[in-house]
Amino acid sequence: MVPPGHDNPQTGPFYVDGAEPGDTIAIHIEKLSPARPQGLSSFFPGFGALNGTDRTAVLGPDLPETVWFYDVDEKAGLLRTHSTDGRATWEVPLRPFLGCLGVAPGGGEARSTIVPGDFGGNMDCPEVRAGNTVYLGVRVPGALFSFGDGHFGMGEGEIIGTAVEGAMNVELTVDLIKHRETPWPRIENGEFLMSVGAARPLEDAARIAFKDMVQWVRERSGLSEMDAYQFVSQASLAKVVQIVDPLYTVLVQVPKKRLPKNSTR
Amino acid sequence: MVPPGHDNPQTGPFYVDGAEPGDTIAIHIEKLSPARPQGLSSFFPGFGALNGTDRTAVLGPDLPETVWFYDVDEKAGLLRTHSTDGRATWEVPLRPFLGCLGVAPGGGEARSTIVPGDFGGNMDCPEVRAGNTVYLGVRVPGALFSFGDGHFGMGEGEIIGTAVEGAMNVELTVDLIKHRETPWPRIENGEFLMSVGAARPLEDAARIAFKDMVQWVRERSGLSEMDAYQFVSQASLAKVVQIVDPLYTVLVQVPKKRLPKNSTR
Amino acid sequence: MVPPGHDNPQTGPFYVDGAEPGDTIAIHIEKLSPARPQGLSSFFPGFGALNGTDRTAVLGPDLPETVWFYDVDEKAGLLRTHSTDGRATWEVPLRPFLGCLGVAPGGGEARSTIVPGDFGGNMDCPEVRAGNTVYLGVRVPGALFSFGDGHFGMGEGEIIGTAVEGAMNVELTVDLIKHRETPWPRIENGEFLMSVGAARPLEDAARIAFKDMVQWVRERSGLSEMDAYQFVSQASLAKVVQIVDPLYTVLVQVPKKRLPKNSTR
Amino acid sequence: MVPPGHDNPQTGPFYVDGAEPGDTIAIHIEKLSPARPQGLSSFFPGFGALNGTDRTAVLGPDLPETVWFYDVDEKAGLLRTHSTDGRATWEVPLRPFLGCLGVAPGGGEARSTIVPGDFGGNMDCPEVRAGNTVYLGVRVPGALFSFGDGHFGMGEGEIIGTAVEGAMNVELTVDLIKHRETPWPRIENGEFLMSVGAARPLEDAARIAFKDMVQWVRERSGLSEMDAYQFVSQASLAKVVQIVDPLYTVLVQVPKKRLPKNSTR
Repeated sequence: MVPPGHDNPQTGPFYVDGAEPGDTIAIHIEKLSPARPQGLSSFFPGFGALNGTDRTAVLGPDLPETVWFYDVDEKAGLLRTHSTDGRATWEVPLRPFLGCLGVAPGGGEARSTIVPGDFGGNMDCPEVRAGNTVYLGVRVPGALFSFGDGHFGMGEGEIIGTAVEGAMNVELTVDLIKHRETPWPRIENGEFLMSVGAARPLEDAARIAFKDMVQWVRERSGLSEMDAYQFVSQASLAKVVQIVDPLYTVLVQVPKKRLPKNSTR
Repeated sequence: MVPPGHDNPQTGPFYVDGAEPGDTIAIHIEKLSPARPQGLSSFFPGFGALNGTDRTAVLGPDLPETVWFYDVDEKAGLLRTHSTDGRATWEVPLRPFLGCLGVAPGGGEARSTIVPGDFGGNMDCPEVRAGNTVYLGVRVPGALFSFGDGHFGMGEGEIIGTAVEGAMNVELTVDLIKHRETPWPRIENGEFLMSVGAARPLEDAARIAFKDMVQWVRERSGLSEMDAYQFVSQASLAKVVQIVDPLYTVLVQVPKKRLPKNSTR
Repeated sequence: MVPPGHDNPQTGPFYVDGAEPGDTIAIHIEKLSPARPQGLSSFFPGFGALNGTDRTAVLGPDLPETVWFYDVDEKAGLLRTHSTDGRATWEVPLRPFLGCLGVAPGGGEARSTIVPGDFGGNMDCPEVRAGNTVYLGVRVPGALFSFGDGHFGMGEGEIIGTAVEGAMNVELTVDLIKHRETPWPRIENGEFLMSVGAARPLEDAARIAFKDMVQWVRERSGLSEMDAYQFVSQASLAKVVQIVDPLYTVLVQVPKKRLPKNSTR
Repeated sequence: MVPPGHDNPQTGPFYVDGAEPGDTIAIHIEKLSPARPQGLSSFFPGFGALNGTDRTAVLGPDLPETVWFYDVDEKAGLLRTHSTDGRATWEVPLRPFLGCLGVAPGGGEARSTIVPGDFGGNMDCPEVRAGNTVYLGVRVPGALFSFGDGHFGMGEGEIIGTAVEGAMNVELTVDLIKHRETPWPRIENGEFLMSVGAARPLEDAARIAFKDMVQWVRERSGLSEMDAYQFVSQASLAKVVQIVDPLYTVLVQVPKKRLPKNSTR
């Protein structure tokens, strides 16, 4: 296995001038494109959702380390690979995103680049993609923003432990929003409000994201807590983002066009 | 609260002639339409994802019982309601499905209509909708198939504990597939293979659905276990279906057009 | 594997005259003794805490089915066995208890004898032993009390999936306590109040048992909820009973001599 | 609430000469005694096992912040307090231990003093007490060993979020064991081998501790993996140590006198 601290290489950290705890940075992801014509996905023993791990501790032998290389077909918007024995081929969508994007955690902690959390980090969330804005609460002076872990594409759940991964060309802009706290990562585009929760067990990741969305809807609409609970319950999409990292991530999405409006009655 | 045994009224059970353990029934859902112009959603104390329950046992007061009525606008394809104080309104999509659809469980058990499982039951899965086929493994002679719990629409997660619910007109056809076991519910349409897992914690529901999908892909494509694990990892969608019932449900979807093909090399 | 419905053979069910929902039965376990000079423990593929199961779904091969026979040494109070290759021997305490003891579940359900719940059932709890009284809430007329699954001894966690098991001679007395509800199983002897919770994930089993103990302490002492929460937090013992059945069980114990007393200030 | 980084004050870190990754330090806890005649326990909103937290995210009001002071009666070996309204009193055992004891984590991480892990840390484990030896694997040069968070006594589960806490006089000795890895904390005294696991959900903490104990028993006895699995299953005690910190802890104990012996057959 990769030595600790060598997974998911990062660019940064960047000191954001004027950013202080209690502020938020808004990261506008302008453009992402694979820097290599090939990405790879691998299975590492002890890592993944359908085998024993350091935490889901089991006895007996592990599955074998295996690597798959995917060709990037930018024109077709596809990633293409073949089975280990070469007899079968398959394609999956080319949808570049950043597996990691985060600020320094609070409370004096430093976390590995395989861990997601309220600071962002290794969320492995496909919505950290070009065209979207990610909001992260600042936890230390200067925010100490970093990003990396290029993903060319990934299924929801990331069950084998890795996406189709590779070096990425990245263009992004960071804005500073003073005096706005952001307890958990939020993502926004023209269509959706999105909240990310990270925890184990997986239902706690979901609870965190849903509770944050209830709060976000209240900020946008002025609904009471119970009404916002009802609205989010009926209007949300919820994805199992990944169940392989030290904390799992869930993404909750609410379509902005469904947000409550003032009654005309 | 509704007395035990009175939630989620069912039609059935139907004895399927010739169905025996080891067989599968395929339920083709032909048509679903709300039988009433209004549906309702409610919050019950002790039930829901963002409050204490009988299982997530906490101290202190619970949230208040609250009911919301939704008008069905079939033409617009929307469900419409307003906030408790009447000041705000919102709409969510009208997407009728059956919250419950199942066979009798095996092992001599009888389960409440609020419980999902390998037998189907209260999966609360929006893909149990018109146009889709649900496969359930037969566990007792005659299968003892039943369905009910009309849902006019629901957000993923069903966090308040209920969908927008009401009586439903249902047309469906049941086929019997002899000598095919179906350990966990499967759903299929022209676009997707779909596996449903039910368990707590939520990651176990996901693991069940993903493992079943790995198996299903192997049946369809002949891939090895490791290759199918890799393919499903990169090709899947995974939804948090509900985190409120006695067992949680996760839906894993694989686009059929992405299934591996024989290599031409 | 044993066919469904053939695990954990039971004696009963017994109809308890006059027992109705809202009542409690108190089962005084008078005497338990092994009916055979040998007990056995086995590992079944797909069952156990340190390997994949139907719920902790993993890929790859399972561990091999294995059986160990234990000789009962009543005089020494020990169970004695040897390693599979015969080179090593070990002894564990002979501490007979009933793995299963329960009433019929409520809500029209019938549950397998491998499932524990608020009705008791397959709690696999070593405190279901001679000298102790078990309280179970009545859920159906006549209670329909049953017991079985003789355990000669067991480690906490029951991680291989089985105790040292065998036929048991059982003497017990059942008392009916009218108009007392018992939401979750309680056990009592001269030394301890004990509450049993059954759920997944394991923390929910613990929460259930701890919340029940907070309530029980309040009934006995008249403490406020916050004070009882504090008292139980400092005075409890809490055991991982088993993490192998469809629901896990946790036992919380409070020493009766520590129960709060009226202040003399 | 206490500002982040101010919970659980520590002594250290100490640089252990010659300690390198791949080694183990053995901490012999010689003597622990309360440095104050009074300890305290408190409930903080958002922290505890029977209420909503940042991770078990729920809506609605939280329980009120409350503090209880306990008098230390060294002669009687008891801690004594009274209910909030002064009408009742209770006593719990005085059993001093260190809530925190750890080395620096590996992989370049720095963790809050409220977090337990494979490095030890905030295990809140009552067996970190005088007379016991704790083994921790060295993860960085010099180990960077620290300890603190004096606990005068605590119930298993620590459900209100805090023990009876206060300043502690501590005497301990640290030995360095070269070239022995210790993946998870181990504790030993004349009577028991003990393994500590830390994770969420709680069953994963248990799995970690049980798997480590299977390994430890193999090292001591030479048993095969299946036999050690069987032995540990029948011989273990397993405690819910705490279910309130960011990771939960479980303690597994095996009586040393039960360890397998060479067969004389």
